[in-house]
Amino acid sequence: MSFITDDFLLRTDTARKLYNDYAKDQPIIDYHCHLPPEAVAGNRQFENLFEIWLEGDHYKWRAMRTHGVDERYITGDATPWEKFKAFSETLPYCLRNPLYHWSHLELKRYFGIDKLLGPDTAKEIWDEANEKLKSSELSAHGILERFKVSVVCTTDDPLDELREHDSVQRQDLPTRMYPTFRPDKALAIEDVENWNEWVGRLFERTGVSSDDFSAFLSALESRHDFFHSRGCRLSDHGLEHCFADFTDEQTVVGIYHKARSGGIVSALEKSQFASYLMAFFARLDNERGWTKQLHLGALRNNNRGLFERLGADIGCDSIGDFPQGKSLSGYLGHLSGKGWLPQMVLYNLNPRDNYLFATMAGNFQQGPKAGKIQFGSGWWFLDQKEGMTWQINALSNLGLLGHFVGMLTDSRSFMSYCRHEYFRRLLCNLIGEDVENGELPNDLAMLGNRVENICYFNAANYFGFDLGKYEGLKN
Amino acid sequence: MSFITDDFLLRTDTARKLYNDYAKDQPIIDYHCHLPPEAVAGNRQFENLFEIWLEGDHYKWRAMRTHGVDERYITGDATPWEKFKAFSETLPYCLRNPLYHWSHLELKRYFGIDKLLGPDTAKEIWDEANEKLKSSELSAHGILERFKVSVVCTTDDPLDELREHDSVQRQDLPTRMYPTFRPDKALAIEDVENWNEWVGRLFERTGVSSDDFSAFLSALESRHDFFHSRGCRLSDHGLEHCFADFTDEQTVVGIYHKARSGGIVSALEKSQFASYLMAFFARLDNERGWTKQLHLGALRNNNRGLFERLGADIGCDSIGDFPQGKSLSGYLGHLSGKGWLPQMVLYNLNPRDNYLFATMAGNFQQGPKAGKIQFGSGWWFLDQKEGMTWQINALSNLGLLGHFVGMLTDSRSFMSYCRHEYFRRLLCNLIGEDVENGELPNDLAMLGNRVENICYFNAANYFGFDLGKYEGLKN
Amino acid sequence: MSFITDDFLLRTDTARKLYNDYAKDQPIIDYHCHLPPEAVAGNRQFENLFEIWLEGDHYKWRAMRTHGVDERYITGDATPWEKFKAFSETLPYCLRNPLYHWSHLELKRYFGIDKLLGPDTAKEIWDEANEKLKSSELSAHGILERFKVSVVCTTDDPLDELREHDSVQRQDLPTRMYPTFRPDKALAIEDVENWNEWVGRLFERTGVSSDDFSAFLSALESRHDFFHSRGCRLSDHGLEHCFADFTDEQTVVGIYHKARSGGIVSALEKSQFASYLMAFFARLDNERGWTKQLHLGALRNNNRGLFERLGADIGCDSIGDFPQGKSLSGYLGHLSGKGWLPQMVLYNLNPRDNYLFATMAGNFQQGPKAGKIQFGSGWWFLDQKEGMTWQINALSNLGLLGHFVGMLTDSRSFMSYCRHEYFRRLLCNLIGEDVENGELPNDLAMLGNRVENICYFNAANYFGFDLGKYEGLKN
Repeated sequence: MSFITDDFLLRTDTARKLYNDYAKDQPIIDYHCHLPPEAVAGNRQFENLFEIWLEGDHYKWRAMRTHGVDERYITGDATPWEKFKAFSETLPYCLRNPLYHWSHLELKRYFGIDKLLGPDTAKEIWDEANEKLKSSELSAHGILERFKVSVVCTTDDPLDELREHDSVQRQDLPTRMYPTFRPDKALAIEDVENWNEWVGRLFERTGVSSDDFSAFLSALESRHDFFHSRGCRLSDHGLEHCFADFTDEQTVVGIYHKARSGGIVSALEKSQFASYLMAFFARLDNERGWTKQLHLGALRNNNRGLFERLGADIGCDSIGDFPQGKSLSGYLGHLSGKGWLPQMVLYNLNPRDNYLFATMAGNFQQGPKAGKIQFGSGWWFLDQKEGMTWQINALSNLGLLGHFVGMLTDSRSFMSYCRHEYFRRLLCNLIGEDVENGELPNDLAMLGNRVENICYFNAANYFGFDLGKYEGLKN
Repeated sequence: MSFITDDFLLRTDTARKLYNDYAKDQPIIDYHCHLPPEAVAGNRQFENLFEIWLEGDHYKWRAMRTHGVDERYITGDATPWEKFKAFSETLPYCLRNPLYHWSHLELKRYFGIDKLLGPDTAKEIWDEANEKLKSSELSAHGILERFKVSVVCTTDDPLDELREHDSVQRQDLPTRMYPTFRPDKALAIEDVENWNEWVGRLFERTGVSSDDFSAFLSALESRHDFFHSRGCRLSDHGLEHCFADFTDEQTVVGIYHKARSGGIVSALEKSQFASYLMAFFARLDNERGWTKQLHLGALRNNNRGLFERLGADIGCDSIGDFPQGKSLSGYLGHLSGKGWLPQMVLYNLNPRDNYLFATMAGNFQQGPKAGKIQFGSGWWFLDQKEGMTWQINALSNLGLLGHFVGMLTDSRSFMSYCRHEYFRRLLCNLIGEDVENGELPNDLAMLGNRVENICYFNAANYFGFDLGKYEGLKN
Repeated sequence: MSFITDDFLLRTDTARKLYNDYAKDQPIIDYHCHLPPEAVAGNRQFENLFEIWLEGDHYKWRAMRTHGVDERYITGDATPWEKFKAFSETLPYCLRNPLYHWSHLELKRYFGIDKLLGPDTAKEIWDEANEKLKSSELSAHGILERFKVSVVCTTDDPLDELREHDSVQRQDLPTRMYPTFRPDKALAIEDVENWNEWVGRLFERTGVSSDDFSAFLSALESRHDFFHSRGCRLSDHGLEHCFADFTDEQTVVGIYHKARSGGIVSALEKSQFASYLMAFFARLDNERGWTKQLHLGALRNNNRGLFERLGADIGCDSIGDFPQGKSLSGYLGHLSGKGWLPQMVLYNLNPRDNYLFATMAGNFQQGPKAGKIQFGSGWWFLDQKEGMTWQINALSNLGLLGHFVGMLTDSRSFMSYCRHEYFRRLLCNLIGEDVENGELPNDLAMLGNRVENICYFNAANYFGFDLGKYEGLKN
């Protein structure tokens, strides 16, 4: 008996029709992810289920720790098989957790495996999947093709040379891979040593010899230009909250030189410096027609013991409760006053802020681009049925769902493309329920059009990417 | 095929019985709205659908901007028809937004129009509605009568002469129109120029010649008296959060004189001054048996660019995330300690604060008046199915739904009376589902009594209005 | 016609099977409550329904105040019957409030009474219940036995001599009663007079003569030891938020001596002192294998008028909106860095923080104990269907529901054991719905195992209590 059936998550006839006729076959524009560019460039072939599934997935690591698994079997020196086995013992305790759905959906879609993963089935699943991983259909390129990934956007430091992106470009794959400009390190002036090291490399890379503030800005802009030339149309910022302490340029220049000479900046100075730079980046994005992404609200590296042993991004981050309203309003308001407001996608990590973010987006909408300011899809911990439903409902109630650019993977793994299927099923199910309840007109053609837009066409029209072989597919 | 059917939102038999037998025919006490008094006094007849529907409705403007409509067709110099047409192009993209429900419900109830509004139907709907708008049944008075509006409370500056209210009073309509005392400007000492201008007018209007603080308070009290004489039984305050920096009167007098002589007050001084005045207003309300409304949590005028061009209240406000607990507790606690706590309705704009507000109301309940402190109905962005459901559920779980004073329109438009129908359907549906699920006893007479109380009788008994021709209708 | 049927809250076949076969008959580990130890030690027999039901229940008092009941009939000098009568008039207005479910469930389970309580049935219910209260089956011991309460944990000041616990121990009941170490008063240095009085008693009780800081710590540790010897395995802290202002010990010693000599400490000093002590307590808990409970976020004694007349814990507390993220992260992070992190249960009072708390717990999970850091069950105002559902869903989506230690009563009343039934029905219903919707595999044996673990075995294995006659019952 199958767990992942054709009707998975689709509870009404309308939902099933919408999904099958309008959603299922749409290509994917994966406009935000953390796939390693070298794996795409090199068309990585995975040795086993551990490599493609567990190697870098801190969602699974958190679950395993919660199940009481020893760190040796999570990030330690146990063998791939031992780690997979430990995960197989964990998964049956993940009922109602997104991992339970994701994992079984992935086993089915990538390997055609329809068994529930547990200690009893671990060995046969390991063997069967590993065998199938030898096929070119499950290489990096094979996967991107199978899931009709039109565009994949990686997340990159402005200093990155984008050699892998060039390589992918030369290979002329059906999938286009574009970089995303993520200058978090340019703002991180409070960590003065690392910041200076980074600025030094920035000057080196851009061949700038002067060390004044305008040279710093020019160097940043030249990297922005370089990314643009590689097809980049997106920037991204990972912040606890926005910065909106705008001050005169003289003050900002002073802060810059203080930090360049190794001085410690105050919290206010950090905020003033970051406010200035974030406005500068917005101006660049706006000038070049890019879309800016703001990922707001993560509280990182909480487990000091584990952080000291393993470093960042190992599953010890959580949802914070930073005040968001005034600083987000101050930042966007500043840009609107200056005429620098680019297209934006606003992502909040704490779902309690959904309504704030959705209404904040609404304040800054402006023609002719429909949905200029997007309230972003459920992110990280919110990338599950409850979180995605809340986001879709908030967006529906407070904005225009019809102009939503939809789902992304935000993943480090090639196994995550099913998340688009998951999102699409969920979306169709919500709309189907509304029809069944008489809360939407039973007009399948119109609803289907909205669905296919959200699944693909809105993103295709919104970001301005060269879509390569999928270019013709706009509506 | 009709979209707005008789069973709209009513999914169970119990829901349908409750709605049809107990809710549908109740009169309306619209205890908080922003209707222009002169339109009631002058019995405004509307030229076309634009005037009655789009002219002042920033909900629709936000949607149109999100759809990419140029500002010319929103607040600019396009013709009424052009603007309506632009709205008709927007609405089909508002699926799952309350506008979609409100708009079609309004077309049906006001004009008997059962079509879905879109570019294809825009012209015929425009023509048909405009024709019907010529009838006296769709004049301001006609509408109030048709929807059995027993009382309508406008929102007024304390300096208002209430001439339109007097005029309505003389016309002896079935609907009573009362003012609401909203002294926001008396607190706005941080904007010292405008504040002084307002205080100057206050003294002028009240004939006070002295400029000491007690004269200021007396002048305010005389306006309170004047409003009371016009049937006013409600005050209202629109604040980001409460003020609870209570200090000695000497300090407050000092702040007053500083501001009167044009001095800039600090944030603490503003809070001390506002705390004092808000306590003063509560004492007045309590003495005269009024109900005080607190609308807390809006973050206004966020889009600086648009604000500079168009001013306030044009659709650039959003939900804030101000801390509410300590200041709300401090304010209400102060009043309870002084014996000055009037009846109150507490409205929060951020739904994440529903549980805080509902439990805060519970702290201050006191006989003999049932439901003395009300947790107010879903407000502004929350005035939709999800937001109203959350409010009703929070109130149910943390307080006594049975004593709820129910719905209001909070609208600038005469087209909004259907919101009461919407609320009533929703309420009946929630109760009906509970019955169907065995979570409420299947005792229709008892449930029906609760429903009719929430729809009308609780408000009729709570506010102490003279209900005019509806006076007999209390239970 | 019965309101509380066998299928109450169980809407699917799967739910009913799970409840009846796996949940219903499980014993109870009531690991957090406020039952008076002397009532257990003395096997209290209750005179009437007022004594067992209304005497100390501020949930009911709040409802009665909201219904407009005069304080005389709530906490005043009215007779027990008069107070019960006033409650019977209130309850029919509590539809959709948890009191409505709790009360009728309690009447049915404790007295076999199947009527709806209201003014019309008050007298017969009063008489019937009072008659039955004479039976030994409804004595304190009778109740604990009937509900298969394996363990009950009271909440105790560290200075408590635990004489009643010794007495219960000697009586060798089937139920074990253990104390919980709640040293809130040790932290309350801002109230310097009461704090000194408490520290004086601490030194007296522990026979310490020196007044230096290390003696203070030793005295606290000796009380921790004493509680441990009485079977205590839990500590508890009721705080608005965590403290994470860690400083050098010298500074803390200085604050201690300042306060010991009657000095007023600043807010920062309070926080530094409390941070130090809370880390110290965590170290003790960790060393002895205890579980620490953090109850965070209540805003207390809001109604100053009522507080001045009646004191604390009389129904004037509410849900606060304190920032929680950074301080909670700082506290747990500090403990993880020091290697002092004990097992913990984290409870938040504001449901908007569910996702923050559930992800924060996830940061600190560590084998070999599964579910080392628990996201605690819906607490106080959240102890109702909506609040419990949100907690279960947040835990499911962000952690491992399968390792949840489940429900507790947190009650002052012996009538509250039905809350476990309520929780179990709700849990089974949620899982049953997921199965029906195809979101969980239809594997009753596996799901049943998870359910029985959450109802009993997880707690039995987690806390490390001596379970007495229930000891054999582990899986």
